[in-house]
Amino acid sequence: MGAPLDPTAAAFLFAESRSMPMHVGGLQLFEMPPDAGPEFTRDLVQRVRATPDMSPLFLQHPHRSLATGGAWTWREDVEFDVEHHVRHNALPAPGRIRELLDLCGRLHGTRLARERPLWEWHLIEGLADGRVAMYSKMHHALLDGVGAMRLLQSVLTDDPDLRDMPAPWARRERPSRPPSRSSLALPTQALNGALAVAGEAAGMPASLVRTLNRGVRNETSAVSFYSPRTLLNRRITGARRFAADDWPLERLRAIGRASGTTINDVVLAMCSGALRAYLSELDALPDTTLTAMVPVSFRRGQAAVASDEGGNAVGAVMVKLGTDLADPADRLRSVRRSMLEGKEALGSMTNTQALAMTALGLAPAVVLPLLRMQGVVRPPFNLIISNVPGPDGPRWFDGARMVGMYPLSIPLHGIALNITCTSYDGRLGFGLTGCRRTVPRLQRLLTFLDDEVAALEKATGVSGA
Amino acid sequence: MGAPLDPTAAAFLFAESRSMPMHVGGLQLFEMPPDAGPEFTRDLVQRVRATPDMSPLFLQHPHRSLATGGAWTWREDVEFDVEHHVRHNALPAPGRIRELLDLCGRLHGTRLARERPLWEWHLIEGLADGRVAMYSKMHHALLDGVGAMRLLQSVLTDDPDLRDMPAPWARRERPSRPPSRSSLALPTQALNGALAVAGEAAGMPASLVRTLNRGVRNETSAVSFYSPRTLLNRRITGARRFAADDWPLERLRAIGRASGTTINDVVLAMCSGALRAYLSELDALPDTTLTAMVPVSFRRGQAAVASDEGGNAVGAVMVKLGTDLADPADRLRSVRRSMLEGKEALGSMTNTQALAMTALGLAPAVVLPLLRMQGVVRPPFNLIISNVPGPDGPRWFDGARMVGMYPLSIPLHGIALNITCTSYDGRLGFGLTGCRRTVPRLQRLLTFLDDEVAALEKATGVSGA
Repeated sequence: MGAPLDPTAAAFLFAESRSMPMHVGGLQLFEMPPDAGPEFTRDLVQRVRATPDMSPLFLQHPHRSLATGGAWTWREDVEFDVEHHVRHNALPAPGRIRELLDLCGRLHGTRLARERPLWEWHLIEGLADGRVAMYSKMHHALLDGVGAMRLLQSVLTDDPDLRDMPAPWARRERPSRPPSRSSLALPTQALNGALAVAGEAAGMPASLVRTLNRGVRNETSAVSFYSPRTLLNRRITGARRFAADDWPLERLRAIGRASGTTINDVVLAMCSGALRAYLSELDALPDTTLTAMVPVSFRRGQAAVASDEGGNAVGAVMVKLGTDLADPADRLRSVRRSMLEGKEALGSMTNTQALAMTALGLAPAVVLPLLRMQGVVRPPFNLIISNVPGPDGPRWFDGARMVGMYPLSIPLHGIALNITCTSYDGRLGFGLTGCRRTVPRLQRLLTFLDDEVAALEKATGVSGA
Repeated sequence: MGAPLDPTAAAFLFAESRSMPMHVGGLQLFEMPPDAGPEFTRDLVQRVRATPDMSPLFLQHPHRSLATGGAWTWREDVEFDVEHHVRHNALPAPGRIRELLDLCGRLHGTRLARERPLWEWHLIEGLADGRVAMYSKMHHALLDGVGAMRLLQSVLTDDPDLRDMPAPWARRERPSRPPSRSSLALPTQALNGALAVAGEAAGMPASLVRTLNRGVRNETSAVSFYSPRTLLNRRITGARRFAADDWPLERLRAIGRASGTTINDVVLAMCSGALRAYLSELDALPDTTLTAMVPVSFRRGQAAVASDEGGNAVGAVMVKLGTDLADPADRLRSVRRSMLEGKEALGSMTNTQALAMTALGLAPAVVLPLLRMQGVVRPPFNLIISNVPGPDGPRWFDGARMVGMYPLSIPLHGIALNITCTSYDGRLGFGLTGCRRTVPRLQRLLTFLDDEVAALEKATGVSGA
């Protein structure tokens, strides 16, 4: 009856558990339009709920039964209940960003029910400054982070005067860039193996496991890391905590210019310094450096930080963050060097090796649990840091100007913290998603990130001493 | 290490699934104290979060491992995270009861995580009329509905001037009536059988299954019912919808006096008329009457509607609601007759038969799924209607007067709607908890309940035509 799920989507359903919900999320902040009345949010919720013609992506839910031979298929939800998916929320007083982040953490910590289409959209009012927020949640079986970003961008406009704009789930006439995982699908070979596990409790082909395992360890690149065990590398629970903030891209660019590094190097150095301060405060800083897994795109022997422009393959580089180094400039240099080495190694891999790193870079959320089932590894990295490019200039929805966007991602057993960044209108937004239990005092990382920008400015001579 | 769970508690964990969370809830409405400042709710949340000495009941979580031999034990949560359990919420505009019920339905539809103590407490602000609400949620493994009501009563006071009152989870010096299930424990014999299923995938003793099965069918009482299959008797999902309202007890008493019936008969007749109207509107009213399972207490050959006073055994009576009858007075008479027959039958049961009905009356949420696993039955009733007595006079918490209380209960596969009533300060509150998908337009039942009070007043001559 229904269309079969592609192997990547099915693998996300299989890898999901109560402790590891497999959805990504986005938080967007908006300023009310100048002509907004007191009923703006309520009217907006009612209007988008009444979307007459919905995109099939938002009506389908996964289904399997004897009739489907036990395979997952997409089936239309004939009892679709829009009020369940499109929700109106409010923050308690005093309506600070803190209350907003707390609500997002809670919303992000509940699983999507499979009897229903795998998404939710929340309008959130009650910020003391009069702004309004949107939190959206989509299962990774529907869309990956880049796909979700594309979808969002296709919904927004650069015209402040446009009104009655279609909801993200409205059917489009001509989807110029359809929000799919097509260009980012996991390699079929890897996923066929993965699904053999899912479907038949059989093993992946031993050769693939070996390759993936070596790929994960990065032994293929002759850069073999040892990652210390930290409090971030424990089993997680299903509850989430979320922290977010943004910084002017120009500040990060200036640090890059002064030190001959890229913005992405600066982002990683910010994370390094912040993690060092955070773990020190908890008396839990290891003597050796933490390692981050950083998804990058690569093509024909070249690698660049992952983006939806350019490269048609995405891989993973293991970056030594230099958290063992006391000096901010040393940490930045260490990150820079490690990133260059990693990209070189990635560029010189054989196809099979690259395949393994591609599978990992695209979807650690599905590949890592599958590897674990094979008795393989704890992964040789401590956290995942990724960067998903967003819109360049300002964007509006129904006259409301978007003034911030922050991604929410997926913590995993052993990888309790995820940092995802996204650029928008001259600022770089950081979204930190952690297991509520395993990663204590997550909000502190925001302070330390801010401290580190100042420290890097000072260390590179951008600002005076 | 930890104390073992009693068999009833363990059975609730076993019976729980994503579609059937096994927690009960309570919604209370409060008027702000006359001296409340703008920070009242925020201060209250902060104060109760800071409770220095907590009751062990609220710190324990269920745990099992190889070390416990696979048995569930209670273990203290050494990483107890009070902010996860005690939450501050707000309603979106316009802040009507409708928005409050919607939020309660959503909060009631998420499962409690077993890594943590099995409760949540939510303070809810944002009602347009300035009132404040509390929604609390406790796993049935901790407390049953009567125990939860006792706990609540022990927390409230009849002194409007008392301040800085202890939170429900504060340790008590001398618990005068400890909130436990002791007097309401499932019969050990029944649960040992039930747990044999859980622990070893073995069957319950065949004799017990037969007795329970006959008990459920009420064949033991020579009153054999056939219940029609309705839209309430389908598989359920995990999402919930909640509706609640209350009516003056005096109006129901007047109907009882005029017709020679009890308040409980009137409640059942209200439900009967409301269900008839509801199902008619959906074009789904069966030709034969719906049957409700009504928990009652009984002792030495006598049966009364269940309460925490009096009787030390609780059983179940199957009441024909007379939804096939067009006249309100006929429905009231039918309910009255059926209830009397049921109680008589219960009073004349053998001990073993009574045991079966006791197991059912106490905990349909655990007994029904277990019976289902034995290939037994769809239960011969269409819904559960119960009545938990609350406080007589007005009660306060920290100077806030409670002005309404409404229970939330547990829908089950095949029993998608639960109606639980509770009396308080001269009013009878109805809490209707339904599966969000299976029971459409649940709020309509409130209108029909109200219509039926008026219809019964007219039919019994309490009000003029």
